[in-house]
Amino acid sequence: MLFMVEMTVRIPQTLDPVVADKIKAEEKAYSQQLQRDGKWRHLWRVAGLYANVSVFDVKDADELHTLLTALPLYPYLDLKVTALAQHASAIAQN
Amino acid sequence: MLFMVEMTVRIPQTLDPVVADKIKAEEKAYSQQLQRDGKWRHLWRVAGLYANVSVFDVKDADELHTLLTALPLYPYLDLKVTALAQHASAIAQN
Amino acid sequence: MLFMVEMTVRIPQTLDPVVADKIKAEEKAYSQQLQRDGKWRHLWRVAGLYANVSVFDVKDADELHTLLTALPLYPYLDLKVTALAQHASAIAQN
Amino acid sequence: MLFMVEMTVRIPQTLDPVVADKIKAEEKAYSQQLQRDGKWRHLWRVAGLYANVSVFDVKDADELHTLLTALPLYPYLDLKVTALAQHASAIAQN
Amino acid sequence: MLFMVEMTVRIPQTLDPVVADKIKAEEKAYSQQLQRDGKWRHLWRVAGLYANVSVFDVKDADELHTLLTALPLYPYLDLKVTALAQHASAIAQN
Amino acid sequence: MLFMVEMTVRIPQTLDPVVADKIKAEEKAYSQQLQRDGKWRHLWRVAGLYANVSVFDVKDADELHTLLTALPLYPYLDLKVTALAQHASAIAQN
Amino acid sequence: MLFMVEMTVRIPQTLDPVVADKIKAEEKAYSQQLQRDGKWRHLWRVAGLYANVSVFDVKDADELHTLLTALPLYPYLDLKVTALAQHASAIAQN
Amino acid sequence: MLFMVEMTVRIPQTLDPVVADKIKAEEKAYSQQLQRDGKWRHLWRVAGLYANVSVFDVKDADELHTLLTALPLYPYLDLKVTALAQHASAIAQN
Amino acid sequence: MLFMVEMTVRIPQTLDPVVADKIKAEEKAYSQQLQRDGKWRHLWRVAGLYANVSVFDVKDADELHTLLTALPLYPYLDLKVTALAQHASAIAQN
Amino acid sequence: MLFMVEMTVRIPQTLDPVVADKIKAEEKAYSQQLQRDGKWRHLWRVAGLYANVSVFDVKDADELHTLLTALPLYPYLDLKVTALAQHASAIAQN
Repeated sequence: MLFMVEMTVRIPQTLDPVVADKIKAEEKAYSQQLQRDGKWRHLWRVAGLYANVSVFDVKDADELHTLLTALPLYPYLDLKVTALAQHASAIAQN
Repeated sequence: MLFMVEMTVRIPQTLDPVVADKIKAEEKAYSQQLQRDGKWRHLWRVAGLYANVSVFDVKDADELHTLLTALPLYPYLDLKVTALAQHASAIAQN
Repeated sequence: MLFMVEMTVRIPQTLDPVVADKIKAEEKAYSQQLQRDGKWRHLWRVAGLYANVSVFDVKDADELHTLLTALPLYPYLDLKVTALAQHASAIAQN
Repeated sequence: MLFMVEMTVRIPQTLDPVVADKIKAEEKAYSQQLQRDGKWRHLWRVAGLYANVSVFDVKDADELHTLLTALPLYPYLDLKVTALAQHASAIAQN
Repeated sequence: MLFMVEMTVRIPQTLDPVVADKIKAEEKAYSQQLQRDGKWRHLWRVAGLYANVSVFDVKDADELHTLLTALPLYPYLDLKVTALAQHASAIAQN
Repeated sequence: MLFMVEMTVRIPQTLDPVVADKIKAEEKAYSQQLQRDGKWRHLWRVAGLYANVSVFDVKDADELHTLLTALPLYPYLDLKVTALAQHASAIAQN
Repeated sequence: MLFMVEMTVRIPQTLDPVVADKIKAEEKAYSQQLQRDGKWRHLWRVAGLYANVSVFDVKDADELHTLLTALPLYPYLDLKVTALAQHASAIAQN
Repeated sequence: MLFMVEMTVRIPQTLDPVVADKIKAEEKAYSQQLQRDGKWRHLWRVAGLYANVSVFDVKDADELHTLLTALPLYPYLDLKVTALAQHASAIAQN
Repeated sequence: MLFMVEMTVRIPQTLDPVVADKIKAEEKAYSQQLQRDGKWRHLWRVAGLYANVSVFDVKDADELHTLLTALPLYPYLDLKVTALAQHASAIAQN
Repeated sequence: MLFMVEMTVRIPQTLDPVVADKIKAEEKAYSQQLQRDGKWRHLWRVAGLYANVSVFDVKDADELHTLLTALPLYPYLDLKVTALAQHASAIAQN
């Protein structure tokens, strides 16, 4: 099942840059692992912003919740979640 | 170049259902042609709503504008357009 | 899988009251059938408003979309859909 | 009488993690006691967010206020309260 | 139990003025009866607007819903409902 | 003249609890004095929130401003002010 | 006592232009009479919009309500009312 | 040329009260000088709030920007700027 | 003096298409005349929407108001007006 | 391709003024270099605010993202990005 997740990153100015860089590196590794696993199907940058549009392919809302809350950047994310269904005019299956 | 386009359809109650059905059939055919052409790369239904999330792959904003304003349902659409860039953590190219 | 669906009914003043009453009767019958089937698990009135808070128990977003768009009142509904997951402190399973 | 309460948790980054963990453990115990008492009738996680949708069954607004302000996480909660009435199409009584 | 109800009246321009005046007269009579019954405890005009702030004293949300939906102007009202509790600093009881 | 004032209290987590308690005690005493003086005519708790709905009876906007800015909690309040007029259907005088 | 009133005019496209012109002429005459009476102290056009910013000098909210609801354009106005007090740094008295 | 400027003051709790008082005294002196110069034509307090509604009479947007950014409280102000034109029904010239 | 004006066109479905086309042709001619006169300095389409971003170069707010209200499409426009000043880092003069 | 970018600067009060001045000087130099390169085509101050309206001329969203995230003030900016297309009534080419 697909979910669109829109993420905006808000790292506080007070966070130690060394710690911030470590978290970002872990986020990148974790994100790429999920992409290779087919769980994080799309990842696009919102032009100009520290934000992304993502599409996740998971079994259900529980798996989505588990994956998202395990994001290293999770404490610094504003998230919007939208459940997606098959569109009758789409030529591809979800 | 990629654009996310979020569309909500608001067909007025006063539109003749026969006309509405004809427009919807044209919309479907046009949409599927653009999908086969690789211009309308993704089309997902927002669960529960008469709305979709789409990703277009076009040369630039002018081509996007031309494609969208040619939608048979265009007069009845509320649209939100977001320009997408390559995300540094994405394993796929836009 | 559970979804919270918040519905606000906006029947246009121009709708023939006889037609409106027929649609509302069909809505009630359909809603009660889905409740007996265990698909529409909760249905509460928002006090004072022509609106409700509902919880649906469905296989996935596709089934939710099919059920909602079949509502007789669907053309007159404003809908907000929220995917629900298991809460770690809940003593009941979703 | 039923109230829907939507809670979003915003624990400040500056809170000592040991203190935060203690508060969360107290919150869980308190929440489960209220669930067993039948006061906190439903508790669902909003998928992807540090937020929940809850339904409380209390005598009146005063009891609701007493229960909510006693939540260990109360100082860190954004709350939205909605009074619920019996829906004429519901097959269950509130 | 007390509820604050904020009402904004939006009578469509297309409503026959004779019908409108009849509905307003019925609304006034019904409102004054509820005030005399002690159900509609306060009724204030929002200065400059076709709107009011009201406080209802009812048994529960079900009674509130019954009273409000019986308002002759109900189909033309935008309503906001807020449940009120006893304030610890108030010298009067709700 | 009557004004509805909606107050939400936002005491920063960094405020010394001893100081906070002292301010709250002063607020309570000041509030009860104004209630006894007939200036602060109504004071209701918004159920579940650290917020209230109040009605003030003052000579004019200048007196209202003087009373509100003298609130011990004033630096921590979000305020919304609404001027109230006599409602033609009210059986009581403002 | 002073009130700022922000007015936006929304004349429906369906209103007969002859009727609309008559109402606008009456509005102008009424507005200028109130200005000469010192009740409507300031009247400014919001640049580019069919809207104005006004300041009224009235006895209280009741008089304001009476003056505004008597505006010939009143049924077509969106209004926002703000009570004004004396500013301690102002060199003029309200 | 006239501009309406709506200002809300948000002095951080962390600002040294002695510094804050000095800034406020400078603000008052500067504001009164601009009023005497005819640049700051009106200054009203929004009743109950740490906010004002002002009207400036300046040569153009550049002069307005220069005057506003020189306000001693400028770093703590939320500002909304609205350009005003002559209203055809006004009996006074801007 | 420069103003940014953001325009969204909302032509009602009920407008006769022949009339609509005539108004649009007049709008285009008028717009191009103002562009040639140097009054309408920039005109950009918002990609995907029936909307534009414009920059006007006028003497003051009065001239802006006169130009905008003379737009043939004016009754169908939602407008947002922003006054622009010289930016200290700009290498060009406004 | 053109993008409108609206920037609001929010420099935290806690930033060392010497550091802030250095960042602003770097921002100015970088901005002027991009203007001379023809990438940052327009830069206007929003009158009264610490904000600007800009138009960028770039190859695509990726180049825009690279330019914006390299702004020395980027960590302190709230940004809104709007893709612009050729307007059919514009006498100039984008």
